[in-house]
Amino acid sequence: MTQIEQSLNGQISGEMRAVAALEPRTSEEIRADIGNGHTVILKSLLHDCAPVGVGKGLKIKVNANIGTSGYNEDPEMELKKLRAAIYYGADAVMDLSTGGDIRAMRKAVIEESRVPVGTVPIYEAIVRQPDVAKITEDDFLSSVAAHIEDGVDFITVHCGIRREYIPLLNGRIMGVVSRGGSFLVKWMMRHGKENPLYTGYDEILAMARKHDVTLSLGDGFRPGCLADATDAAQIAELKTLGGLAERARAAGVQAMIEGPGHVPLDMIKENIELQKRYCGGAPFYVLGPLVTDCSPGYDHLSGAIGGALAAWYGADFLCYLTPMEHLGLPDVTHVVDGVIASKIAAHAADVARGLPGARGRDDAMSRARSNLDWEGMYGLAFNPERARGLRRGTGRDDAEVCTMCGDFCSAKINRECRERYRP
Amino acid sequence: MTQIEQSLNGQISGEMRAVAALEPRTSEEIRADIGNGHTVILKSLLHDCAPVGVGKGLKIKVNANIGTSGYNEDPEMELKKLRAAIYYGADAVMDLSTGGDIRAMRKAVIEESRVPVGTVPIYEAIVRQPDVAKITEDDFLSSVAAHIEDGVDFITVHCGIRREYIPLLNGRIMGVVSRGGSFLVKWMMRHGKENPLYTGYDEILAMARKHDVTLSLGDGFRPGCLADATDAAQIAELKTLGGLAERARAAGVQAMIEGPGHVPLDMIKENIELQKRYCGGAPFYVLGPLVTDCSPGYDHLSGAIGGALAAWYGADFLCYLTPMEHLGLPDVTHVVDGVIASKIAAHAADVARGLPGARGRDDAMSRARSNLDWEGMYGLAFNPERARGLRRGTGRDDAEVCTMCGDFCSAKINRECRERYRP
Repeated sequence: MTQIEQSLNGQISGEMRAVAALEPRTSEEIRADIGNGHTVILKSLLHDCAPVGVGKGLKIKVNANIGTSGYNEDPEMELKKLRAAIYYGADAVMDLSTGGDIRAMRKAVIEESRVPVGTVPIYEAIVRQPDVAKITEDDFLSSVAAHIEDGVDFITVHCGIRREYIPLLNGRIMGVVSRGGSFLVKWMMRHGKENPLYTGYDEILAMARKHDVTLSLGDGFRPGCLADATDAAQIAELKTLGGLAERARAAGVQAMIEGPGHVPLDMIKENIELQKRYCGGAPFYVLGPLVTDCSPGYDHLSGAIGGALAAWYGADFLCYLTPMEHLGLPDVTHVVDGVIASKIAAHAADVARGLPGARGRDDAMSRARSNLDWEGMYGLAFNPERARGLRRGTGRDDAEVCTMCGDFCSAKINRECRERYRP
Repeated sequence: MTQIEQSLNGQISGEMRAVAALEPRTSEEIRADIGNGHTVILKSLLHDCAPVGVGKGLKIKVNANIGTSGYNEDPEMELKKLRAAIYYGADAVMDLSTGGDIRAMRKAVIEESRVPVGTVPIYEAIVRQPDVAKITEDDFLSSVAAHIEDGVDFITVHCGIRREYIPLLNGRIMGVVSRGGSFLVKWMMRHGKENPLYTGYDEILAMARKHDVTLSLGDGFRPGCLADATDAAQIAELKTLGGLAERARAAGVQAMIEGPGHVPLDMIKENIELQKRYCGGAPFYVLGPLVTDCSPGYDHLSGAIGGALAAWYGADFLCYLTPMEHLGLPDVTHVVDGVIASKIAAHAADVARGLPGARGRDDAMSRARSNLDWEGMYGLAFNPERARGLRRGTGRDDAEVCTMCGDFCSAKINRECRERYRP
């Protein structure tokens, strides 16, 4: 039985218990939320990884994308990124490879990763058959089957973009920025047919159910710039995704919803509220959102601003962005910066949501800082190596204080006040 | 006459006109807002710099701190930081030097800077006489006079911390993290007297009025960690600052209010609302705020999250943080990262506030991106050199597309759709 089926049967699964052990929710609460679709547990029956809960009342999770491209096909480099992402706290990784031996890459990632692994199966179908005239409905569905059988824990499927929505794209500046979404639009225009991931949805559900793979219902029409945010195309797809999520639940398949993208600060709350309303409270998995289009080289930062807000307002799962977004494939240091940026956003949101225990880390850091306990500070930092390295780079990490204030250090002055004047 | 006096006299000054030329406000609106204290223009009569408006309905401004410390006294390095900060768009700089020849440094910064320069005069007094027993009330006030006579445009003065508030600090984890604030507390405890910047406030006003220097009423009791945010000490000082701002206006002196610090996401709105209420709508100049205490090495990012929110909610002026905050004195690259992070936060807030023209840059970037016009994208980026350098580093900046997606590029697919299927 799948997690949903066990939930509806009143059974608490081992995965539910494992998730509850790490979260401020009881296994019974998690069971109930899986049944009503408010929470998913990412874990394929075929993959020996730690199950990760995403959803109501749980810690905000962070996903890191890795993977080759046609211009950058080194699998060993991608495995290094995988290890770095997990080391710095990514809760899941997606292998988005589109270059080299895609299947070998995926199998290596699944083999190595102790966190859940996601993929976008149709990328492989498109890379294998880039001629839109020749690729068939079956090619798309076969790719889904292949990825599920290889043991991925969750898959992005752009089932919600429909042919009738294509005219809604006309006013956009950026058109369709989702790779899968753009190719599906091209396919629908070329063939004059409906999206095969929509017409084949029941087949996809049957495949996913078999190994309890979670569907990440992709937002093929996510806005790719501020001007396109929350437009008719995006909302039409979102409503469709809500219906598909309901069908998934009815079929015993877990589903979450993917979200934008590029969204001005003042529209983020509305985006979360619309998703929760149209999608029955299904977990929301957002990419950023970026709060400006003008931050190439700093998109991890722009995305962390949007991500912190989105998560505070109710998004459940943050897909990282790296400083290389819009510029090229990231290297390992960019992956680390991306993971840390999203971890900061996620943690800030957990604190703001009042999640039990979340602020304890901040308080411990502040006590260490107040005591000028540098080892304590490094240990509580999101990136201890970077904090230590930056301080070491000043050439005065032998001193009790730092080079910013030298001996004119407020922590030192506070200590003197405590010791001398408050006996 | 000062800007306030001219405003109350119904006169539109040259500075008001110069500011209006760069802002979505008329010179008459700016005149009115200077008179009622909702806007300030940073510019000393002694400094030949471009006047910068901070306040109601104006673009969010960014300040970059530079300056030596006792552990790092190279003035040439600080001037390099000054140039880098201005190049990347800092609207003002503060010279917080505490090492080497502080006065020579300040004069060099004022001489070189075409943006307004701020300082914290009492730092110099304390560095010259670090023995709390020996430093006098007059030493503090003389430092203010010296900085004003040297031509600084705005000064931080911690006039709002009062002796009676010291017991309110008892429950704090981080105590007083403001350097000036911590020393003044120590001085009050040692001497058993009131804060000399409070008792000497009328003298400070007279000095500031002479050259139309803006007072930045410092938050000596700003919270230095999430646990201390919005506590009784912070609020007691804030209310006092509101009264002092009113006294400044009455004396023809412009004033803005400094704010936190470290504030959880969910408390930022409240902090802005309290400041606007207690301080008669005076401009609010915030440091971050940081939304977690655990981000050493990434405090520019954590501060950008808080800064974007604060500015959207009504803060007017963002003091940058660099990746070196809490670790040491920044170098030039850290200064650049700090400025860009704050510029992104400020711009995101301007877009969210619906400031006329703000989103034009994003739309232009998105058109360039949609057309794969890389030079156009670099030109519209907050940091063109970094964007170009990162793409060049992939070794494939000769290609039309980037190494992230290779030929599987949504912009390319969109173009094919436009050209082939929408004739």
